[in-house]
Amino acid sequence: MTGFIIQNPTLEQCLKAVKMGIGARRLLIMLGELRVDYFGRGSSELDYGERLLIVKGDGSLLIHRPTNVEPVNWQPPGSLYRAYVKRGLLVLEAYRKRPEERVRVTFRRVSLVGVYHLKDGAEFKLYTAEEVMKKAFIKRPDLVEKGLRVVMEEKRLKAGLVDCFCVDSSNRPVVVEFKKDRAGIEAVDQLSRYVDELRRGNPEVRGILVAPSITKEALERVRSLNLEYRRLDVRRCIKVLESMEEPIKPLEYFES
Amino acid sequence: MTGFIIQNPTLEQCLKAVKMGIGARRLLIMLGELRVDYFGRGSSELDYGERLLIVKGDGSLLIHRPTNVEPVNWQPPGSLYRAYVKRGLLVLEAYRKRPEERVRVTFRRVSLVGVYHLKDGAEFKLYTAEEVMKKAFIKRPDLVEKGLRVVMEEKRLKAGLVDCFCVDSSNRPVVVEFKKDRAGIEAVDQLSRYVDELRRGNPEVRGILVAPSITKEALERVRSLNLEYRRLDVRRCIKVLESMEEPIKPLEYFES
Repeated sequence: MTGFIIQNPTLEQCLKAVKMGIGARRLLIMLGELRVDYFGRGSSELDYGERLLIVKGDGSLLIHRPTNVEPVNWQPPGSLYRAYVKRGLLVLEAYRKRPEERVRVTFRRVSLVGVYHLKDGAEFKLYTAEEVMKKAFIKRPDLVEKGLRVVMEEKRLKAGLVDCFCVDSSNRPVVVEFKKDRAGIEAVDQLSRYVDELRRGNPEVRGILVAPSITKEALERVRSLNLEYRRLDVRRCIKVLESMEEPIKPLEYFES
Repeated sequence: MTGFIIQNPTLEQCLKAVKMGIGARRLLIMLGELRVDYFGRGSSELDYGERLLIVKGDGSLLIHRPTNVEPVNWQPPGSLYRAYVKRGLLVLEAYRKRPEERVRVTFRRVSLVGVYHLKDGAEFKLYTAEEVMKKAFIKRPDLVEKGLRVVMEEKRLKAGLVDCFCVDSSNRPVVVEFKKDRAGIEAVDQLSRYVDELRRGNPEVRGILVAPSITKEALERVRSLNLEYRRLDVRRCIKVLESMEEPIKPLEYFES
């Protein structure tokens, strides 16, 4: 990470850093006493207060107050900027053409200005609750049944995509389906369609529905169709996944 | 604004600053190379990259990548924190009980850690597009008609709340209603209800509908009801409001 930071910059230092940072598409961070005026779809005013301002390399603008996740004012990527000094105050304007919007930030005092070049090429991977259950199951199939082995992490059938295709300790094929919430009739019917398709080739095929709970009606259907149900919830799966890593030393949480 | 910043802190300096900052409910800012693991409703993984981390005094957590307005991971106010060193890496965990969620941030390198106490008691004032039109009109009634004077900035009638109650240069009362979008029949009918109520006491009362445009049908209704229409859009009102301030020296916008 390359960059620089200036504490209590002069007006000239600050203007130069702002223009350089935005012009070079760097991350600009400023802490200071500022007011914000917005004109566009309606308008807004926020009188002077101590806040954090961020301009990102793509032109996004964020102005953060001392509390809350949401920025109090913001502009999307692609905003245009100008910065100037007026009556001894530093003004930074973000402008957007369509829809026409302008955010004007007026600094009465700047405590910190930083310009950094961040490198970040990582891919954000998001897993649904059912994918988390499946991940834990793949690492620890005994969560569902001792002796199970995962053969295929997914299997495409005419009836759809099976979550996990396994064999049990007696080498019988097993279809495993995960539901993050209480399983109902639809979940049983879905599993049943997969198992039916496979039982045409091998009547020994088992089907296991894995969910945190099941309705009475669904459990009856499970039994009548010669399927099975195992209780497992996402929370337990998360604990299992976390425990696969080297244990961290226990520490008390402290309140912010 | 009180606070401090450390560039390229040692692991110990960093851990101390993080614990102090969060414990004292300050604003914590960190720039570094970090990875993020989230467990809760599903899970997410983001491998190492250079990012900005913010913890606010209310316990909000924001992790920002070099682009986009939205944080890649976040936790709401009230989150609990713990920080520790593990295998030479600084780990910061945000924990939330209900729903149970955990964000674990692992720093491989910290370029900057800052802890600041921000004071910000200002009130955020938001104006709708119609309020902007009204603000501009109050400052410059000639935008609608020369010689108009605003008597009441709003007036409550049985039929509802009138936007502006004015008198014209001949001292005739004038009801002015603003619409930010193309005015239709409903807008005319609304104005008509106000004017009707007032005309019972004074048949001279005028009614002016102010909008950027009007449908043909609505314009016919305006005429048949002996009302009036004036063209004015929000953009013009914003320009008027901005021009009321001391003109700023013209500068070219530069692209970020």
